This record gives sequence, structure tokens and C-alpha cells, in this order.
Amino acid sequence: MLNNKALNGEKIIVNIRDIKIGIDNRPIIIAGPCSVESKNQIIETALSLKEIGVDILRGGAFKPRTSPYAFQGLGYKGLEYLKQAGEAAGIPVVTELMTENDLNIVSDCADIIQIGSRNMYNYPLLEAVGEINKPVLLKRGMSASILEWIMAAEYIAARGNKNIILCERGIRTFETYTRNTLDLSAVPIVKKKTGLPVVVDPSHGTGIRELVNPMSRAALACGADGLMIEVHLDPQNALCDGQQSITLDEYKSIYEMKRKIIISPTSIH
Amino acid sequence: MLNNKALNGEKIIVNIRDIKIGIDNRPIIIAGPCSVESKNQIIETALSLKEIGVDILRGGAFKPRTSPYAFQGLGYKGLEYLKQAGEAAGIPVVTELMTENDLNIVSDCADIIQIGSRNMYNYPLLEAVGEINKPVLLKRGMSASILEWIMAAEYIAARGNKNIILCERGIRTFETYTRNTLDLSAVPIVKKKTGLPVVVDPSHGTGIRELVNPMSRAALACGADGLMIEVHLDPQNALCDGQQSITLDEYKSIYEMKRKIIISPTSIH
Amino acid sequence: MLNNKALNGEKIIVNIRDIKIGIDNRPIIIAGPCSVESKNQIIETALSLKEIGVDILRGGAFKPRTSPYAFQGLGYKGLEYLKQAGEAAGIPVVTELMTENDLNIVSDCADIIQIGSRNMYNYPLLEAVGEINKPVLLKRGMSASILEWIMAAEYIAARGNKNIILCERGIRTFETYTRNTLDLSAVPIVKKKTGLPVVVDPSHGTGIRELVNPMSRAALACGADGLMIEVHLDPQNALCDGQQSITLDEYKSIYEMKRKIIISPTSIH
Amino acid sequence: MLNNKALNGEKIIVNIRDIKIGIDNRPIIIAGPCSVESKNQIIETALSLKEIGVDILRGGAFKPRTSPYAFQGLGYKGLEYLKQAGEAAGIPVVTELMTENDLNIVSDCADIIQIGSRNMYNYPLLEAVGEINKPVLLKRGMSASILEWIMAAEYIAARGNKNIILCERGIRTFETYTRNTLDLSAVPIVKKKTGLPVVVDPSHGTGIRELVNPMSRAALACGADGLMIEVHLDPQNALCDGQQSITLDEYKSIYEMKRKIIISPTSIH
Repeated sequence: MLNNKALNGEKIIVNIRDIKIGIDNRPIIIAGPCSVESKNQIIETALSLKEIGVDILRGGAFKPRTSPYAFQGLGYKGLEYLKQAGEAAGIPVVTELMTENDLNIVSDCADIIQIGSRNMYNYPLLEAVGEINKPVLLKRGMSASILEWIMAAEYIAARGNKNIILCERGIRTFETYTRNTLDLSAVPIVKKKTGLPVVVDPSHGTGIRELVNPMSRAALACGADGLMIEVHLDPQNALCDGQQSITLDEYKSIYEMKRKIIISPTSIH
Repeated sequence: MLNNKALNGEKIIVNIRDIKIGIDNRPIIIAGPCSVESKNQIIETALSLKEIGVDILRGGAFKPRTSPYAFQGLGYKGLEYLKQAGEAAGIPVVTELMTENDLNIVSDCADIIQIGSRNMYNYPLLEAVGEINKPVLLKRGMSASILEWIMAAEYIAARGNKNIILCERGIRTFETYTRNTLDLSAVPIVKKKTGLPVVVDPSHGTGIRELVNPMSRAALACGADGLMIEVHLDPQNALCDGQQSITLDEYKSIYEMKRKIIISPTSIH
Repeated sequence: MLNNKALNGEKIIVNIRDIKIGIDNRPIIIAGPCSVESKNQIIETALSLKEIGVDILRGGAFKPRTSPYAFQGLGYKGLEYLKQAGEAAGIPVVTELMTENDLNIVSDCADIIQIGSRNMYNYPLLEAVGEINKPVLLKRGMSASILEWIMAAEYIAARGNKNIILCERGIRTFETYTRNTLDLSAVPIVKKKTGLPVVVDPSHGTGIRELVNPMSRAALACGADGLMIEVHLDPQNALCDGQQSITLDEYKSIYEMKRKIIISPTSIH
Repeated sequence: MLNNKALNGEKIIVNIRDIKIGIDNRPIIIAGPCSVESKNQIIETALSLKEIGVDILRGGAFKPRTSPYAFQGLGYKGLEYLKQAGEAAGIPVVTELMTENDLNIVSDCADIIQIGSRNMYNYPLLEAVGEINKPVLLKRGMSASILEWIMAAEYIAARGNKNIILCERGIRTFETYTRNTLDLSAVPIVKKKTGLPVVVDPSHGTGIRELVNPMSRAALACGADGLMIEVHLDPQNALCDGQQSITLDEYKSIYEMKRKIIISPTSIH
């Protein structure tokens, strides 16, 4: 069943400007708020993160919400603000693409295009991002098997775009204490089978602020090429995902932990 | 969390030509092959089903496959053949819409637009079909909670289109003997909460030919407004879903069973 | 993997006094409260059920609770009361055995020994009940695969006791609206593979009072040999499982529905 | 619902001879074969592990198998051999207790009594081990929620025995690539809520030999107090769990990794 012709396990490094994702012992960090809430908020967050240290800024402009009446994101305005924030801080940005009709405009604003968990099976969308050159961050579907996830990446690569960063973000299980069950065992498996870099999102992966730090450590310890973390200037008042967003101080601890790994490869890695 | 303003439990009957979906004790049947394989195949299947008795013809033109290298369907040609088959047999047709860019062409060929399980969270797609008048068959996501499913229907209804037929097709669980676990308890729950008609797909719901008949009985017994069944002229040689497709003879038994319920309301219903 | 030598699919009818479980179109009903709460309660319930019509009385004396501080049942006194209630109403009783050390005393009080969902993997316990002649009601583990369930029955039959009634009671899934997900597709599968009678528990299977009736219908429609239903004189004040227990009136509707199936085999069955 | 009176979060160190389980940055390792296959095998394994470095020896005498016809373990003889192996290597041993009727004999042979995943809901068994002084290794049920697991520990502690080591061993999910889904997020949660030490079993947790090392790293990185690993002299010919058992060489790498954490606390921990 695993008919992966385009991705066959040969190591692939994804390049964004001067950042290389996938180099052993050189994990990167993607951080930012769940969504772009205002121009000030996203710019301030970007600058604060840059001061501490960050590789890529995240921020959602189009938010997939369970209810049509919940905050849906700032939309196109949000994309603009995100782009401005990236320029202000001098860092690349990643944001979610919800429909192929927005491919051009999102491509114009972002350095990396994110395919969200709910869209991992959206094959027309995968084919669309497969036909451009821009790096794609492909989140595992919340109930996608490892094989389905690998084949979703194959949909993209088969069209010519192998600049794919896989992102494990937890899977849906019977457990309700955590929002999802973070499946770290998937990390070494998909790294080996596809050759692609794999990052881990401990924010959606657990849904609990206090777990972001320990699960970040665990993720890097088992070989993840990076982390994707929700950081908010004021989590209690975030428009979405507040309970899993961490503060800048909490982010700093995680950044420091990651830095040590790079400096001292004789550690747990 | 359940903020369903558009669908509040008031009973909704969905009309397609002279067919009414949602009338108590008047279940309907949707039947046909997994995919349109050729013009002859779909027309012959349609005529055979018509002869036995059927309300609506199904057939996929764009097939969502786990692998990009698997048969993807006949595409636009498949839509044409399906439309011709419906006209030949004088019955309405339903087919899956994969991207809002195909909305017009699919709308032109089909009487009901199906949103597949893998697209239940594709909110832009839901909004697109919410803005037309055509009936929509909304399949439950394979790992969608009942509440998420109800809110997905709300996405469509909130845009003005309340002609929604919900379809329970099994959920993903730890059990591997069946392809999915058919969750019949969802039927009375969502019927009551949304007021919408609910049909059941025992084909995907079990993945096993021998289970289609008993689960069809169970579905109608608990109040489903209809069934959606994969029928193939030659299941062993079907291009997809052969192991769960039933023959015309097996379909006939199920149709007869359904007919009896209509004739004799003092039965189990 | 399915090495079922003792249970090979040959039909097995389980006899308790003059009741035969497993005859086509002759479903039986087991009903009673979640637990024996007092001598009066269980006797009154038994007499009331008898008046409406019931085959077997259920009632728990030893309740497996998630917390050690929750009501654990009346224990040995509960067994006595249950036995007295069965005698007063002239019907057989079934109750759960928690440890092989209680085998004799439970055997003495009950006509059928129940192995609960949490004990389906308790192989020493299965072997113990496999060595006696008394009928055993084997509940499916809440996360047991169909194959594991069949082999659990094999543990019992391999020791010589083939008087096994299987009971599907819902499996644990991601869905939280229902307490468990009732897996009716398991019914025809295990009936065919083992030859054993299979009953369905729609009470634990859904955890919701309003679903007990429709799921009872669905269970019988797909061939279940009976139902196991929690009935309470006053569900709102039940010591456990109140929200899924039905009243005597609600029970009456279900009994009437079952009776019709027996009278009129040309119905949905 | 979380009514944990006996275990309230106060840190508990579990002592076995001179080993202390639960000290920060002092993880321990439990290693050994899935089952005791012969006297020579278990003694040789114990001595080899001792030579490399190990804290506690594991080995099953009574194996819970899905099928009654599969190898069930050497039983009482196995216990003897295990005890002899522990004495020969001068290390404590842990083995699984299947029924309270074996409590004395297992107590006599082992330093730690293991309650297996399939018995986490066996409340009479939990109460029995709650009444002795010996340390208990309580494995999480394969589909047990974190809260149920905590309350299972409460059953033991409520009877007076707080010498409990919790063991996360993976949970049952839809994913079939791995045998279970190792839920590392549970580690910091239950450590904090109960105060008990928590070890991780990456062998059952993944079912795949190549994943034992990376998941061991991840487990220690997120704060696990130790690891429980299946090691076999010749995994290809192991009587059970061969595909997840690692060789002595592979074990050595993991032991070395653990040792570095103790020597250098300024690493990822």
C-alpha cells in the first residue's frame, strides 16, 4: 500500500532563506499566536519572539472553527499583518491555507504554507500546493494513520514539490484529559520512511499549557527537527486556544533548552 | 458549545423531484457503485436498480484515494455518464463534490451534492454549498464527534441552505475487523437535535459485504430515513470498494425489506 | 490467530430452566437495576418486571467502580436479596462475578454468572467459570477487539463450558456524547464465528436513557438474541447508572416491541 | 470525580533495597525478557544485563495471552527461575501477578509485584496488593483514561500501600503501525497529580524494536522516573514479543544514554 515513489526515504532538507530544516541536531522553532488578532498584537509578538530567539513566526489568518459563529480570523487583513510582522522582525512566516482559491494571496504573504490537520485529506488542495515551489508544512490529520499521512505528503511530492515539513500535532483518542494524544512514536517512523523533516506541535498536541515544555523536550529527544508552539502575549485573553498558549517567559525556557542541544550534541541527542 | 441557530430541531423534509426524505416510516434508498467506471457500467447499473426499485442513484466521479497513484475516478467524464444514467433510468443522482471550483459543473450534473467524510471539516466547501439551493448529503467525518457533525451542518444552513441530508457512515476506532465502526446511536441523536433527515451507509460503515443487510435492518429499525448502499454488477472486479459492494440480488433483498416497512407500519417501527 | 477449536461456529443454544437463548426470532430480555440497593427495591422491581414480562432478572451485588470511594454494592447481602427476588418472581437471575474466590457463593445465588467488561481479559477468572456447568454471560471488553472477545469465549469453552452468552455493550471511542459507542456490527460477526447467542446491552452501550428504545430495536433487527436493559423504579435516585436506566413504563414499550417480533416473524426480521 | 484522598500529590519515593525510584534526574531501568523461557535463559540474561548495568530484572512467569492455546508461561517454575536469576545477579526482580490467589507465592519470589495492563480494572486484585507492604508496579490499562489510572492507584493506596510505581505502556488507538500509541503526555500529568514515580515501557508502547531507543530518550526527557524494557538474548526466537524485544547491544546504548543523564544534569533534563 505504501507506494511512495516521490518520497523514498532519501533525506530532504527544507530551506527557507538561510534556515535549513532537517539537519541532525539542529532543531528549529516556529512560534507565534494561534491567530492574528490585530496588527499591533502580531507585530509585538514577532518582535518579542525575535528578541528571545525564534526561527519562524506562525499566526493564523483563516481559523478553522467547529462553529460557524466562532471567531474565524481576520482573513486577508490578517495575512497582511502577519507579513508585516515577519518583515518587522526579519523572520519568515507560516500560515494556513484553507482553499486553493487563496493559494496566490497566501503564497504572496507567507514563506511557508500550512495545510491544517482538517485538510490533510483535501487532495485537490494538496495537489495545488504540490505544483508550486514554496515549502509546505503538512499537519497530520487528527485521525490520520501514519500511512495515510505519508501518502498525503506523496500527493504533494508527486506534483513536484518536495519541500515538505511534516508536523505531528496529536491524534484523536478516547482520552479526554488532553485535547489530543501526542504521538511521538510517529516522528522517527515518518522521518525514516519519507526522508522529510518532522516537527512537533505540543500545543495542539496536548491542549494544556503546562505540558508544552515537557513534551517539547520529549519531541526533541526522539529526533524531531523542530517545534511549533503557540505563544501569546496574554494567554488568558487569547481569542482562541488560550488554555494551551504559553507566555513569552515560558517560551524563553523552551528556547534555551533547544539552544543547549545545538551547543552540546553529547547530550541526550 | 452547540450554537445551532439555523438548525434548531424543527423537522425538515428534503425534496428531490417527487421524493421526500425525512417522512416517518418512509425510508428511501440511494444505491449505486462506488465509482463510475464506464458509461455502460453506470447506465446498466442504473437500469437494473430501477427495475428492482431505487430512489436515488449514487456514483463517484472524483474518488478521494489514500494514494495519489490509485484510480482517481473518471472525473468530468464520469459526471457526464452519471447524469446520462440518471436520465436513462429516470432517477435523481448524487455524487461527491471535492472542491468548490467544481461546484457549478457538479451542480449541473447531479440532483444532490455529496460532501464526503474527508471533507466534513472543509469549511470553505461547506460555505460554498450553503449558498446554493441544491440538496446536500453531508457525510459524518470519519472521526468527527456528533457535535462537530451538527455544527458542520450548521455551516451549510447558516448560509441559507437547509436542504441537508445527514449520512452516518461509520467512525474510526481501534477495531480492525470492520473498516469503520457503524455508530447507529448517532442517528436518533442528530435527527432530534437538527431536525434533518439522516441516512445510513452500511457499506463504508462496515466494509464487509455480509454485514450490509443486517446493518441496513438495524439502521431502519432505529429510525434512519434511508440507506446509502454500494451495489456493483460484479463486486469482485470493482475498481474500488469491491469487498463491501453487494450484488443486485443482495440489493433486492434489502429493497424488499425496506418495502415491507412502508407497507406495514405496525412492524418493528 | 483465530484458533477457536472449542467454538467453531456450530450453533449453541443456552438453556436456563425453560428458557432457550439463541433460537432464531425468539429474543429474550434480561432486565433489572444496575445494582441491588435494598431487599425491597430488588423484589419490587422483579415483581413489576415479571408483571410486564421479562425472561431474566439482573442486578449487581459487587459493583466495579472507577473510584474506591463510590458505592461498591451490597456485596454478599446483595446476592441474597437478588436470589430472593428471583424466587419471589419465579425468574432466573444473572449477576456479576468479580473474583474466582466468590465463584461458589455467586454460583449458589445466580442462574447465570456474568463476567463484566472490565474482566474480559481476566484469564484466571475465565478459566474458573470454564470449569463449571453454569451459563456464563461474557461481556465484551470496553476496548476489546472482536477477535479478542471471541478468544476470551474460547478460554471458557476450552475448559469445557460452552454455555456462553456473549454481550455487546459498546466500545470506547473518541465520541463523548454517548458513554460508549454501541457496535452492533459485532453481533452478526460473532454469532457466525462462534455459534453462540449474542445479546445487546443498550444501557451501557449508550449511557443515555432516550437511546435505549431505538437501539434495542436496532439490536433485534440485526439479529441479536436478546437485550440486557437497566430498569429502575426511580432512575433519578438510582445509586448508579441513573442517567441510562429506564422506567417501568419505558421498559413496557420495549417488551411490547420484542413480543411483536415473536408473534409476527414476517416483520423486519 | 478525582477523589484521591490517599494519593494527593505529595512526592513518594519507592524503595527497593538500596534503589530509590522517583528521585529527580535519577531514572532507573527495569529490563529483561518478556517471559521466563528456561532457567538458563533467565539467569544468563540477568547476568548479562548486570554486566552492562541494570537496576531491576523483569520476566513473566504467567503470561496473559489473547489465545488460550498460546504459550502461557512457565508458571510457578518460572517464578522460581526468576528468583534464582535475581539472586545470581544480585538484583531485585519484578513479575506479574494474575490472581490474588497467587499473592503469597509471587510475593515470596519477587521484590516488586506487577499489575498488568489487562488487570488495571481488577479491583479485588488491586485491593489485595493494597494490603501488603511490597512495591507494586501498576501498568496503565490499554484503554484506561488518566483519571481511571489514578483512581486504580488510589484503590491500592487506600488500603495502606503507597509503594506504587506507575507505568505508561501505550494506549489503544486507531493507529495500527505501532502496537499501541505511547502516551508520554500522561507522564508529567500523573506524576504531578499522584506524587508517585512513573516509568515508561517503550517496548509494549510501540511494539517495534527500532522505536525503543528514541522513545526511551523521549520518556526520560519529559521526566519519566525510569524505563521498563524487553531485552532478549535472541529476539528472533523469543517465545513472545520478539518483534519488540531488543538485543543486549541495543540495550547497552540505552543504558549508556541513561547514565549520561545522571552524570550531567545540565543536559536536556
